[in-house]
Amino acid sequence: MPLGVFDSGIGGLTVVRALRAAFPARDILYVGDTARVPYGNKSAETVLTYSREIVDFLEKKGAERIVVACNTASALAVPFLAKAANVPIHGMIASGVTAALEAGEGPVGVIGTSATIASGAYQQALAKARPGLKVVAVATPLLVPLVEEGWLEGEVTERVVGRYLEPMIRAKIRVLVLACTHYPLLKTVLGRVLGPEVKMVDSSEACAASLQSNEGQRIEKGGLKIFLTDEPGSFLGRVESFLGKGSVGSIERIHLPHS
Amino acid sequence: MPLGVFDSGIGGLTVVRALRAAFPARDILYVGDTARVPYGNKSAETVLTYSREIVDFLEKKGAERIVVACNTASALAVPFLAKAANVPIHGMIASGVTAALEAGEGPVGVIGTSATIASGAYQQALAKARPGLKVVAVATPLLVPLVEEGWLEGEVTERVVGRYLEPMIRAKIRVLVLACTHYPLLKTVLGRVLGPEVKMVDSSEACAASLQSNEGQRIEKGGLKIFLTDEPGSFLGRVESFLGKGSVGSIERIHLPHS
Repeated sequence: MPLGVFDSGIGGLTVVRALRAAFPARDILYVGDTARVPYGNKSAETVLTYSREIVDFLEKKGAERIVVACNTASALAVPFLAKAANVPIHGMIASGVTAALEAGEGPVGVIGTSATIASGAYQQALAKARPGLKVVAVATPLLVPLVEEGWLEGEVTERVVGRYLEPMIRAKIRVLVLACTHYPLLKTVLGRVLGPEVKMVDSSEACAASLQSNEGQRIEKGGLKIFLTDEPGSFLGRVESFLGKGSVGSIERIHLPHS
Repeated sequence: MPLGVFDSGIGGLTVVRALRAAFPARDILYVGDTARVPYGNKSAETVLTYSREIVDFLEKKGAERIVVACNTASALAVPFLAKAANVPIHGMIASGVTAALEAGEGPVGVIGTSATIASGAYQQALAKARPGLKVVAVATPLLVPLVEEGWLEGEVTERVVGRYLEPMIRAKIRVLVLACTHYPLLKTVLGRVLGPEVKMVDSSEACAASLQSNEGQRIEKGGLKIFLTDEPGSFLGRVESFLGKGSVGSIERIHLPHS
């Protein structure tokens, strides 16, 4: 039975990459909502409407569980999706929080989209898991455009990151949660700005690792089918930057009720 | 009879601002497709589908003509919209090109979204209007996020602009077309990078001016109704930055067939 995975765009392929390493035998169905990307500046209601359509699509395709490989949708929609869906729904918040607490003791920083940070989902889950923990959460809306523009290093990117992380450096964070699938591509710059003593938690890897612990591995190699709501053309070149080198079984354009 | 105006988001309010100055008596109906913003990285087919839904909505509301206050939709969809619509459709390309050619003699630069620049709409219209004209067109996808983040000045913004405009400075452009409604908010930085000898053409003002020349003015003051496809909440604070200080008659949430 295939695993369903979705994101607002193709960034969630970083989760697919981690899942394929963790579950090489599994078939994976991936939906990237490229016609309506990004979710990070949309309302909770709209993100929930779009996410529901994708969950319906993946259920109909036979997904036996669904991973929400988008921090914004995880923060805004997972509690509601989980109630309405017929299969288990896995968001990224719980696994990200667990990984952050395992990574170290000191103050924790969280960076994400405007909607993710404004939802307070990470802040509340961290506070609940470790009462009294100092958490500094900052919305960093320029980082996704920088990654999509391919400016992964260089002075401009370093200055943008430096400006966003200023309150975290002042608060002497020891762990930084990268609460958006695009951010791991900026690890080099983030590490240079924060210094080697701050540990980074990749929410994609944390999500895949949390699922792995629930399931044994099999040996046969699974396939990957990618479904996009906008024409695949302009995204093809960037698929490998998120997915890593490797075979994509197929990429298909789909139409959802409101895409 | 009201004038219909639409954009992918609220940036098109800069056109409304210019239209209200030019046609103070006109009632204006504005649609901002905030649930599906931005258009600049979507396919032509998707931008056309979304634009058609908005044109239908505005026609039903009684708009007697429709201004496409979005350079991306103007570049990708206006020729097709004009064929299917029951009222005149005004895009931004022709007026921007006219204003650019009136502004000066030397090479012309054009900055816009990835989709606007990739369409070649401005480049072809400029070449047709003045054969042999040197045109340097550059997609500048980070500028909209910078404006939306409110980083209108400062070192980061200046460096981003400097990097994008490098080929234009080398080509010694004399006119720069700001082919996106957000860019006029960056005029100070653009001017600093380009120097005072380069004239900037604001596509919003050029569009309003081209309509003005077709119509006399009346005296009574018109109203403005704004319709947004996502919850208005997070946009309200930014409406004035695009529209200028002034009364908004009403802001209403709407649902289009696919929003």
